[in-house]
Amino acid sequence: MFVSKALGLSRHASKTLEEKSILRDAFIPHPFFSDVIEALRFDRKFGEIEEGTVVAKTVNGVRVIRGFPKIRRALTLYPSIKNHFEREVAVEEKMNGYNVRIARLGKSLYAFTRRGYICPYTTEKARNLIGMDFFKDFPDLMLCCEAVGEESPFVPKRIYEIDGLDFFVFDIREARTNKPLPVKRKIELCEEYDLKHVHLLGIYSSKNAHEEISSIIRKLGKERREGVVIKDPEMKIEPLKYTTSETNAGDLSYAFRYFNDYGKDFMFSRIVREGFQSFEFAESEEEFRERCLRLGMSILKPMVESIRVVSDGEWVSEKIRLRFQSIEVMELFLKHLRKMGVDFRVKEIKKDSGGAVLHFERIMRSTTDKIRTHLEGQPW
Amino acid sequence: MFVSKALGLSRHASKTLEEKSILRDAFIPHPFFSDVIEALRFDRKFGEIEEGTVVAKTVNGVRVIRGFPKIRRALTLYPSIKNHFEREVAVEEKMNGYNVRIARLGKSLYAFTRRGYICPYTTEKARNLIGMDFFKDFPDLMLCCEAVGEESPFVPKRIYEIDGLDFFVFDIREARTNKPLPVKRKIELCEEYDLKHVHLLGIYSSKNAHEEISSIIRKLGKERREGVVIKDPEMKIEPLKYTTSETNAGDLSYAFRYFNDYGKDFMFSRIVREGFQSFEFAESEEEFRERCLRLGMSILKPMVESIRVVSDGEWVSEKIRLRFQSIEVMELFLKHLRKMGVDFRVKEIKKDSGGAVLHFERIMRSTTDKIRTHLEGQPW
Repeated sequence: MFVSKALGLSRHASKTLEEKSILRDAFIPHPFFSDVIEALRFDRKFGEIEEGTVVAKTVNGVRVIRGFPKIRRALTLYPSIKNHFEREVAVEEKMNGYNVRIARLGKSLYAFTRRGYICPYTTEKARNLIGMDFFKDFPDLMLCCEAVGEESPFVPKRIYEIDGLDFFVFDIREARTNKPLPVKRKIELCEEYDLKHVHLLGIYSSKNAHEEISSIIRKLGKERREGVVIKDPEMKIEPLKYTTSETNAGDLSYAFRYFNDYGKDFMFSRIVREGFQSFEFAESEEEFRERCLRLGMSILKPMVESIRVVSDGEWVSEKIRLRFQSIEVMELFLKHLRKMGVDFRVKEIKKDSGGAVLHFERIMRSTTDKIRTHLEGQPW
Repeated sequence: MFVSKALGLSRHASKTLEEKSILRDAFIPHPFFSDVIEALRFDRKFGEIEEGTVVAKTVNGVRVIRGFPKIRRALTLYPSIKNHFEREVAVEEKMNGYNVRIARLGKSLYAFTRRGYICPYTTEKARNLIGMDFFKDFPDLMLCCEAVGEESPFVPKRIYEIDGLDFFVFDIREARTNKPLPVKRKIELCEEYDLKHVHLLGIYSSKNAHEEISSIIRKLGKERREGVVIKDPEMKIEPLKYTTSETNAGDLSYAFRYFNDYGKDFMFSRIVREGFQSFEFAESEEEFRERCLRLGMSILKPMVESIRVVSDGEWVSEKIRLRFQSIEVMELFLKHLRKMGVDFRVKEIKKDSGGAVLHFERIMRSTTDKIRTHLEGQPW
C-alpha cells in the first residue's frame, strides 16, 4: 500500500493500520483537485503518526502531509512554563478560527483541515490569498495557519474585523516530518513572502514569563481575543497553550447552545480551566463575582435561547455564510459537507459577478430533539 | 441458587444472572446482623429486578427486599404533569438525604441503602428510632425513607434542623413485590404508628398542578429545601420528581468541590435542569442574572476552594461525624466502608457513656491528584 511505503511502516504496522481501518478518504475527486489522484487521511492517531495526517498520490508522486500535533494546555502559568521550557519562551497570540495546513501538491495549493480533509472552500481561499512564491522556493514545507473570519464554515467569528476569511501562519513545518522552523525564521519567511502571521507578543525569560503572560491574558480577554501559545524559540520543545476567561466562556456559550450535540468533556474541561485561572490570578471578590456571572451566563443564556427556538417550532442550528468564487467549488463543498456527515440545510444562494454567496444552516438535530422531547412533557 | 428460587427466575435467567456477576455481598456477617445468614444484592438492574434489590437467607427463611425504583424527572412542569398523570396528583416534599429501606428480618430491623448494602450505622439508627409495632402488624412491608440530618455518612446537611439523623417515610411498599400503598393509606399508617413522614404539600388537579408546583418550588428554594415528588394518589402511575434551583446549585457545588471524583453526567444533567427551569419560570432579567450568578458560584467557588486546599498541602476530603451507641457497630461500620471501597481516614473517636462519636474524612484522591499535578506544572 502506498501509505505504508510513504511512511516507511514495517509490515506488521502496515497490517495493523489496515485492520484498525484508520485510513479514510481525504477528498472528493474533482477537476478542482486535479493534482491529486488519491488521498487518504488518518482518522485517528497511529503510533507516531498524528490524526489528520494525509498521504496523497499526486501527479508528481506520493506526498505526506503530517497532521498538526495536539498542543497541550497549561492549567497554571506558574510553575508550568518554568518547568516545561528552557531559558526563554516566545509568546504568540492564539487566534480563534480553525486550524488549516496549506501545502503545494503538483501545480496548486491545497488546504487540509485539522482532521485531514482537503476542504474545497478553504482550498479556494488559500489559492486566492496565498501566493505561490513561497512554495516555489520551499516546496516541501507547509504553512500551518489559523483560518479566521466571519465567513468560516466551522468557527464564524466577528472578532479581528475580518469580513471574509484570512489565514494567519503560526508554524512553518516540513510537511513530511512535521519538523518546525524556529520562531524567528518563521517570521522572517512570512515577512519575506508577504504572508500574514500571528502576533509575536514577546520573548521572555522562562522564569518570569508567567507574570508577563498573566497580564497579557487579562488584556487579550478584555478585547475578547483567545489567548496565547507559548513556544520554545527554537521549537525543540513542544508548545503549550493558555486561554482567556472570555474565550473559555465563549466556548461554553457555543457548546451549551448545542448542548446535546457537544461532548461533555468539552464543557467540563473549559469549566476546570476557569477554576485554575481564578485561583492563580488571585482575584478581588468583585472580579471573582464577575467571573462567576460570566460563567453562569455563558452556560444558561445560550441554553435558554435554544429552548426558546425549539419552543417556537424551529430547529436549533448554526447559520453560516460563505462566499465562493466558483459555483463548481461551492457545489463540491456541499458534497464535501455531506461526506463529512454534517446535517445542513441550504437557505439561499446568491450569485453575482464575483461568484456566489452561500447561506446554509447546520442543523443540531440531537439538541433539537432533546429539547422538543422535554417540552412535550417527556421525563428524563 | 436461593436467589433465583426466591425471585422465581427461569433456568435461563438464572444462568444469565450468574454469568453477568450481578450479585454481590450485601453485608458483613456479624452478631449485630444475627438474623441474617446470607444476603446478596443486585449491583445493577436485571430485567424487572431493580438495582439494590436484596435477597436474604434469614433465620425465618428467604426474604426479598426489592430495590427502590428510579424516579424519573420532569424537566418541564407543563405539560409533563398533565400528560403523565390522570385526574389528580399528590405533591410531597422531596427531602435531601439518602434513600433507605427499612424492613424486618427475623427479630430485628435492617436498613438497606440505595445500592442494597445493609449499613451498620443506618441499621443502628433505625433500631433506635423506628419502633417494632408497625412491623409486628405488617411484617411484609418495608418503609422507604429519606435518612436526613447532619450525622449522615453520605449527605451531611444542616437543613431541617436535625443534628443527628432521622428517617422520614415517603413510601410504604410490599418488600417482595415493590407494590406501594396509596398516598393517604401511607400517611394514615405513619400517623397510627408514630412514624415521621415527608410533608404532603397538597393534592391538585393534574391540569393546573404545574402552576401550584411552580410557586411551591420557588418557596422551597428560598428555604434551601430540595424539591417535590409528584405522585398518583393511588400510586398506580410512576412518580416524577422536580427540584429547586437552589438544590441544583447545591448539587453542583458538591460535585465541583470533588470535580475529578464525580461523574460528568451528574454535573451536566443538573446544568440542563437549570436551563429548562429558567425557560419555564419566565424570569425577569434580574432573576435570570441571579440564577446565572448562583450557577457560576456553585461551580467555581468549591473548585477554587479545593485547589486552595491542595495548594496548602492538604487532601481534598469530606468531613463526616457520626454518633454510634455501640463501639462494635462503629467498628463494623468502618469495615463496611472499606468493603464499599471508600477511601477514608479516621480523625478522632470520642467515647462517652452514650457510645462514641466518630470523626472521619472521606478522601477524594482523584481530585486531589489532578489538582496537585497541575499545580506542579503538568500540562493537560
